[in-house]
Amino acid sequence: MYTHTITPRMGDCDGLRHINNTKIPEYFEQARNPVFRLFSPDLDFEHFDLIMAHLEVDFLHAMVWGLEVEVRTFITHVGNSSFTVSQQAWQDGRLCARGHVVIVHYSHAEGHSKPLTPEQRNWLQQHFVPREEFDQ
Amino acid sequence: MYTHTITPRMGDCDGLRHINNTKIPEYFEQARNPVFRLFSPDLDFEHFDLIMAHLEVDFLHAMVWGLEVEVRTFITHVGNSSFTVSQQAWQDGRLCARGHVVIVHYSHAEGHSKPLTPEQRNWLQQHFVPREEFDQ
Amino acid sequence: MYTHTITPRMGDCDGLRHINNTKIPEYFEQARNPVFRLFSPDLDFEHFDLIMAHLEVDFLHAMVWGLEVEVRTFITHVGNSSFTVSQQAWQDGRLCARGHVVIVHYSHAEGHSKPLTPEQRNWLQQHFVPREEFDQ
Amino acid sequence: MYTHTITPRMGDCDGLRHINNTKIPEYFEQARNPVFRLFSPDLDFEHFDLIMAHLEVDFLHAMVWGLEVEVRTFITHVGNSSFTVSQQAWQDGRLCARGHVVIVHYSHAEGHSKPLTPEQRNWLQQHFVPREEFDQ
Repeated sequence: MYTHTITPRMGDCDGLRHINNTKIPEYFEQARNPVFRLFSPDLDFEHFDLIMAHLEVDFLHAMVWGLEVEVRTFITHVGNSSFTVSQQAWQDGRLCARGHVVIVHYSHAEGHSKPLTPEQRNWLQQHFVPREEFDQ
Repeated sequence: MYTHTITPRMGDCDGLRHINNTKIPEYFEQARNPVFRLFSPDLDFEHFDLIMAHLEVDFLHAMVWGLEVEVRTFITHVGNSSFTVSQQAWQDGRLCARGHVVIVHYSHAEGHSKPLTPEQRNWLQQHFVPREEFDQ
Repeated sequence: MYTHTITPRMGDCDGLRHINNTKIPEYFEQARNPVFRLFSPDLDFEHFDLIMAHLEVDFLHAMVWGLEVEVRTFITHVGNSSFTVSQQAWQDGRLCARGHVVIVHYSHAEGHSKPLTPEQRNWLQQHFVPREEFDQ
Repeated sequence: MYTHTITPRMGDCDGLRHINNTKIPEYFEQARNPVFRLFSPDLDFEHFDLIMAHLEVDFLHAMVWGLEVEVRTFITHVGNSSFTVSQQAWQDGRLCARGHVVIVHYSHAEGHSKPLTPEQRNWLQQHFVPREEFDQ
């Protein structure tokens, strides 16, 4: 697990005066930069052999503009060529949103998935928690 | 079911030159305006008694900037106080993404969910398809 | 001049319940697709020899979620290698925002600007209005 | 002057593999939170008596995903009821974008501008630099 702090923007709120739900996938994407660096150390799109397969978010409590959001990022599944990143958004000491993305190690040039390397699996394992533990 | 057409923006693409995954929830939100009008005919936030509980998207094929996206919107569940909107994004005759949101009829003033009215249930039922049918 | 219609999204509004100012450059970008197609007919980033030099917007009236936005796009300057796109956002028969972008014909491979071709100048001239006329 | 650091998101880049121009106004908005707190200490939309009149950005160098962006925020004009916030985006020690917004102290309830208070003017003055100095 690692944490990343996000400062909400005025325009992240919608007319209900809470962070709009479409912003949470963006916050989680920002907090995944360290995962992406595992595949492309300089975040260089030339060597970005990943593809997104699935995204989901549960909205537990509304978030507001005026307080920072702490995103906690975990790995909850490591497969042969894909893995699951599970993330929590906390504000003011409260868990406000929880999400998962399934990402596939994928050759854009060749058009098919490819196995995770031992180094990649090792890094992902260091951030692993079982899904039941994450969901608590 | 109803359809809504979206024109992608240059900035919707990321460095992989496909529509970034975080944009799909925005496209689907735009295409939900007719659902939202059922609760707030003028899309007036004063009378917007809805809250988002869950969002998920499956990414099936990458979408590009240069072709319009057709979003098809269905209702796949109508509960007592909540319902599920299921949506497909098509580009160039191909199903590219599929998603679901669970929305709760909710009094922001009183802080609790409230039953759907008969009129609301009736409209939602008119757009209903069973989940199995949607998933095909 | 040509027009393009945009359907606002719930999340385009901020907590003041008007379209957030940062969304207007996105609306204008969407409405510039026909200009971009002049340089890259399929909106293909491989052949996108343009670079943005300047962007400005005047906000005249607040826009709301529930009404479509009509964007009117004009060319107000054609230089040797650059041109100015001037755009208006109308809602409910009222001019709500006005903006300009300066775009440079630019070789990303060679790192310098390049002259507009006669065909490009011709298309741009067809959409030309003098700046004084646009500003009225 | 004060500084604020922004971590770019994958989706902030467009197909040219640089931060899309429409993102810079969002970065600058995020970095204006301390200015907004002068008017609404908790960033509460109920007491947000500001309206945006003008926005402009000059794009000097392309920015990339993999490096943090430092935004430096200055006040370059303080009028009776309005003021100008001028901002710079730096990446890798280089000035990449420069922008200005004109913001008006405005009663949304009464529909007209209102004078800045002495306390507000005092805070703004503390961050003031002359425009010539900013432009260098």
